Amino acid sequence: MKTTITTKQLRSAIAAVREKSPLVHNITNYVAMNNSANALLAIGASPVMAHWKDEMEEMVSIAGALVINIGTLDGEWIEAMEIAGVAAHKRGVPIVLDPVGAGATSGRTATALRLIELCHPTIIRGNGSEIMALVDASVRSKGVDSSAQSHDAVDAAKRLALSSGATVVVSGPTDYITNGKELYTVEGGDAIMTSVTAMGCTASSLVGAFVAVESDPMVAATAAMATMSLAGERAAAISKGSGSMQVAFLDELYNLTPDKV
Amino acid sequence: MKTTITTKQLRSAIAAVREKSPLVHNITNYVAMNNSANALLAIGASPVMAHWKDEMEEMVSIAGALVINIGTLDGEWIEAMEIAGVAAHKRGVPIVLDPVGAGATSGRTATALRLIELCHPTIIRGNGSEIMALVDASVRSKGVDSSAQSHDAVDAAKRLALSSGATVVVSGPTDYITNGKELYTVEGGDAIMTSVTAMGCTASSLVGAFVAVESDPMVAATAAMATMSLAGERAAAISKGSGSMQVAFLDELYNLTPDKV
Amino acid sequence: MKTTITTKQLRSAIAAVREKSPLVHNITNYVAMNNSANALLAIGASPVMAHWKDEMEEMVSIAGALVINIGTLDGEWIEAMEIAGVAAHKRGVPIVLDPVGAGATSGRTATALRLIELCHPTIIRGNGSEIMALVDASVRSKGVDSSAQSHDAVDAAKRLALSSGATVVVSGPTDYITNGKELYTVEGGDAIMTSVTAMGCTASSLVGAFVAVESDPMVAATAAMATMSLAGERAAAISKGSGSMQVAFLDELYNLTPDKV
Repeated sequence: MKTTITTKQLRSAIAAVREKSPLVHNITNYVAMNNSANALLAIGASPVMAHWKDEMEEMVSIAGALVINIGTLDGEWIEAMEIAGVAAHKRGVPIVLDPVGAGATSGRTATALRLIELCHPTIIRGNGSEIMALVDASVRSKGVDSSAQSHDAVDAAKRLALSSGATVVVSGPTDYITNGKELYTVEGGDAIMTSVTAMGCTASSLVGAFVAVESDPMVAATAAMATMSLAGERAAAISKGSGSMQVAFLDELYNLTPDKV
Repeated sequence: MKTTITTKQLRSAIAAVREKSPLVHNITNYVAMNNSANALLAIGASPVMAHWKDEMEEMVSIAGALVINIGTLDGEWIEAMEIAGVAAHKRGVPIVLDPVGAGATSGRTATALRLIELCHPTIIRGNGSEIMALVDASVRSKGVDSSAQSHDAVDAAKRLALSSGATVVVSGPTDYITNGKELYTVEGGDAIMTSVTAMGCTASSLVGAFVAVESDPMVAATAAMATMSLAGERAAAISKGSGSMQVAFLDELYNLTPDKV
Repeated sequence: MKTTITTKQLRSAIAAVREKSPLVHNITNYVAMNNSANALLAIGASPVMAHWKDEMEEMVSIAGALVINIGTLDGEWIEAMEIAGVAAHKRGVPIVLDPVGAGATSGRTATALRLIELCHPTIIRGNGSEIMALVDASVRSKGVDSSAQSHDAVDAAKRLALSSGATVVVSGPTDYITNGKELYTVEGGDAIMTSVTAMGCTASSLVGAFVAVESDPMVAATAAMATMSLAGERAAAISKGSGSMQVAFLDELYNLTPDKV
């Protein structure tokens, strides 16, 4: 794994997550819930999955970060996302938005754009197709997998960062992290990660854990993606397929203490 | 594993899934979502889980197949299933229906029968009890597990195939696949597969991947069940219990290239 | 593992679950569904996950126990829980309530208290913070993890048991089980279990399986917690992290026949 931030910055970010154990409030999709909760526990954070409108403001008020993921959305859930997102923005709780499937249907693109306008996410993390779809309405994705190379989406990411005020992460073989001016990268991971479902969603939840404890969103997002990448390449080295990859990934996250970076 | 289709047919079907990587749109239950998505990725397909009414027609329009599974249904989801099913039928997108728990409650039986009438599924896959309940309203299941032997359900399957126009799959120690005239079989797998949740649901999702790329539903369904069976018996041989079985099953699917058949 | 019940009682309870294979109807959270279903299958029970209001009464009527878990609740689900809980109480089907996150939001605390009043659960299982929050409205939890030591909650558990008529389980490094008069304990398990999501929810589902076949709720709850503890410590001994822990836990449950106690 190679990244723009220093080893010291990465170690310090991982140490902060493990020491402060931030509560990360996820409104995420059904596929990813279990994986994301386990990944957050493995890195030392405290996950909560909650979407009931009546408790959104209260849950946000005790959270260190809010992660909104539109992977399996419907009308009720969109309302919950909006209530939570507005409350988090008002309180200064950092928000991570994962626009899963933006570009696949017009409803997803519109929902993601509306959430950006309404909630002012601190960080937006998606694959190349998703980020491009948020900038150029003519981009269509094939489902929730990326059909664009992540580097193709860097220009779109910069434009999205500038227009939204968010730090934007485009994940792929190389991850690009930008606030519109600076561009950080993470290289590493392993191709088998694309054969395990909800890896992107897990990345977004980890971004939530890091931005809860690290005030610079560029450093937080890069540290989270570097953590994914490190655990991913270590897990891939000992996996026999996509099933054992999912298991080994959690083991590697669990064992990734600052000194193991 | 022994099956009615030829090794060449099975290899060719697996190769087609891996080459074309069809988008399989699943409206499935909460228990199975993660397993089904991982199994589809492992065999080379591209899964999407989506149930928002507003995006059903658009999502179906980019899908190679639609899988409807009533495992954890409620009123809102039934509406989404109907909208998606009608849209898929109109567009000629093949539909797989998994009538989970038909016979356990009258609502499930009625929902499955209504979906058959409304959406004209290409393939219906269930266990013996479920298939029998769709033909004979007096059959009651115990929950979502099968209390009938699959061979008892063959007659019911033939009648259901003839009345619905669907290819019907009864899964069990021997899987039976029928269009009402022909009867194909798959023998193999392992008893431990019944101790892993959502294995049947996963089978239905794989049937979706195969019918997206193989135009003969009898061959598509049989190839999918043979793939389940092969991966299942290989995984069982190296598993220490139902937990490692789930992991090894995905590994074996992931490694099941045409030449490994 | 050390516990108040005898080895003979524990063996006999495990044997009863494996022989009778009770249908356990779960209305549980999205994170836990897959884990709980797999754990119930591993111990020999028959899980069903269902929350559709229209089928609640019918599903309860064929169930050996009902498990209500408020981990990812919303308005629709609360209604389903109430319908199912009232129907189960009327029919004498034992009910297990898991008040996930009571104390984290006022809505969760109120929902749990209302379900207790309405449905008269046979057993309530939670962590220390949750049980304390049900007795003392001033207790606030941090999310869904326990911030209280389980022994601090023993007094609260006794008061809750006396006021509700339920057997109350407080899980932690030592599990406490009380009907307000007697106090049973289970010592064992492993700290890594707190790094695997939905372990508490899984415990509640297992309690459901045991109370379906064992008429004394104190013995049923203790046997379930002892089973968790045994499988947990055996799995921890062979795990490399929280990912392999989840897998090994299911394997150990699957292999835990009465003679292996």
